Amino acid sequence: MLEEKSPQLTPISAYGEFGLIKHLTENFSFENPSTEISIGDDAAVINPENRKVVVTTDILAEGVHFNLGYVPLKHLGYKAVVVNLSDIAAMNAVPTQILVSLAVSNRFPVEALEEIYAGISLACKHYKVDLVGGDTTSSNSGLVMSITAIGLEDSQNLVGRNGAKPNDLLVVTGDLGGAYLGLQILEREHAVFLANPDMQPEMEGYDYILEKQLKPEARTDIKNILKELHIKPTSMIDVSDGLSSETLHLSDQSKVGFRIYEEKIPLDSLTIATAEELNLNPVMCALNGGEDYELLFTISPNDFEKIKNHPDFTVIGHAVEMEQGNFLVARGSNELIALNAQGWDAFLRSKKS
Amino acid sequence: MLEEKSPQLTPISAYGEFGLIKHLTENFSFENPSTEISIGDDAAVINPENRKVVVTTDILAEGVHFNLGYVPLKHLGYKAVVVNLSDIAAMNAVPTQILVSLAVSNRFPVEALEEIYAGISLACKHYKVDLVGGDTTSSNSGLVMSITAIGLEDSQNLVGRNGAKPNDLLVVTGDLGGAYLGLQILEREHAVFLANPDMQPEMEGYDYILEKQLKPEARTDIKNILKELHIKPTSMIDVSDGLSSETLHLSDQSKVGFRIYEEKIPLDSLTIATAEELNLNPVMCALNGGEDYELLFTISPNDFEKIKNHPDFTVIGHAVEMEQGNFLVARGSNELIALNAQGWDAFLRSKKS
Repeated sequence: MLEEKSPQLTPISAYGEFGLIKHLTENFSFENPSTEISIGDDAAVINPENRKVVVTTDILAEGVHFNLGYVPLKHLGYKAVVVNLSDIAAMNAVPTQILVSLAVSNRFPVEALEEIYAGISLACKHYKVDLVGGDTTSSNSGLVMSITAIGLEDSQNLVGRNGAKPNDLLVVTGDLGGAYLGLQILEREHAVFLANPDMQPEMEGYDYILEKQLKPEARTDIKNILKELHIKPTSMIDVSDGLSSETLHLSDQSKVGFRIYEEKIPLDSLTIATAEELNLNPVMCALNGGEDYELLFTISPNDFEKIKNHPDFTVIGHAVEMEQGNFLVARGSNELIALNAQGWDAFLRSKKS
Repeated sequence: MLEEKSPQLTPISAYGEFGLIKHLTENFSFENPSTEISIGDDAAVINPENRKVVVTTDILAEGVHFNLGYVPLKHLGYKAVVVNLSDIAAMNAVPTQILVSLAVSNRFPVEALEEIYAGISLACKHYKVDLVGGDTTSSNSGLVMSITAIGLEDSQNLVGRNGAKPNDLLVVTGDLGGAYLGLQILEREHAVFLANPDMQPEMEGYDYILEKQLKPEARTDIKNILKELHIKPTSMIDVSDGLSSETLHLSDQSKVGFRIYEEKIPLDSLTIATAEELNLNPVMCALNGGEDYELLFTISPNDFEKIKNHPDFTVIGHAVEMEQGNFLVARGSNELIALNAQGWDAFLRSKKS
């Protein structure tokens, strides 16, 4: 961690609130014609041009959502943006603007905030979203980041959580469980480091799952792929808290049940190998691990042919009548295992730590 | 402060993240036809109906922006909404939706969050805005609130900070300095209480300034008053950091200077009396105190007749060429005193405390 006592570092108080925001955001450019007024007025002004406005917000707290002992600040900034853009993508909308608020203790020098904003800037460029507002303040301890993301979309393209019908197919993008296992490796190596700071962390060979944890991507690409396939999902959600929890959300809002086939859940080979190494069940990591930021959605069974061989998608189950409940169908035995919502939960998590 | 050890109180962990948000927001109703999808999906959906979208965000940290030793949680919730709506009003837009994020330590029971949300609910009802989203998480210490406010407005009605021209009149609503003096009284009585918990705080007679501090209002009423007077301000800002700081913002963005006449600055008689009691200069409290949440704006000199006797408005000065700088014209002597930006600043403030 960067500490203020180093003589080259700049204390936040050297800037003051307005100067600091100006300094941190002066290199941001604007990509979206919908951004009319940005940072510098009482509020930003967005021109939605006949589209609906989609808006979401997330708050991330040090020691709960991230540990600065092993999460680089630049990655933190990038990921904080991504988790919000993922929510916009889960509405089948195009993200266009973000607002970023930070509460930071004085132990963070300006250079630490510059690192966070470098990550935010990278995410803005990659996803073509504009930083249009925010607030930066001191806090008595730790770092809290709150990001609001805005998307614009034609009404007929929006997809909520409530449209799944019995027999609809349940589809997921990419693969699951990797982000959770990446976190386990980071925590293991951090514990080793704390016990013996001379030990080199053993990160080699874990690249894919470490990247899933430290630098996840929002599946903003899926919207266009589905459009090209002429598929509009009947419901959609992003996988932030684990497959089990997200499936239950779709169930709750759509008033259907789900069957998920264990053997269909997409797992990367490194996810499986790492789970074995850590004596974890990789399917449980997919169900309850979270932070994969893949998209989970339902489609009409009529759309199966369009999607069945597509490399980005895996059909993992289907919707049933609500009374039939939500179950995992076990590999081999076909035993039904109830899905439960023990997803990644900031409150439960903090209780543990 | 409510403490978790009391047997009647509910720990946050009893709910979990989703259950908690559901519990805290279940009694919120919706006032705006523009709110199409609210809490419960990945994002809220707003129908702007051909209007521009105005969006702002603020983050408030315990011990920096508020002290729970003397700020009731319900007032905190109310004020956190108000400060954001004030930014929307300062764009001459109508606030329509808010999103609320909280990071709270486990020392807060659910009942404490219910109090905060009761204040948020009161503000939503009073200002006819809808709570459409948010996030609640644990933090390792203290309370951090981040609120995003959205407004909708026809393009031609929006007022930025950048339209003031030389000779425009500088106008302020209400009166100034009261919120700062209310804070001084609260801090004085809190210090007395800490020194001797048996002492009753002496709050009587300070109602107006205590209310300005604890339960300020956003001047969302001004938009309609100006419309009825057929006045569109040439620039506008809200007074969150003190008259001096806000005037400099208008100066900076509009590329003009300002003259403010000391004798014209509107001060309530209780503000003057309390300042005298505390050996403070009431004009300095207005210039540098902040948190009044009045509106400061410029109008064409041609509009003077329309506004000059209106009880909500005081003409306090005028714009000059930028090269002439920003000065307070002292009462009596006409001495020019440079305006400077030592407004209410969260970083400077935290340095002091």
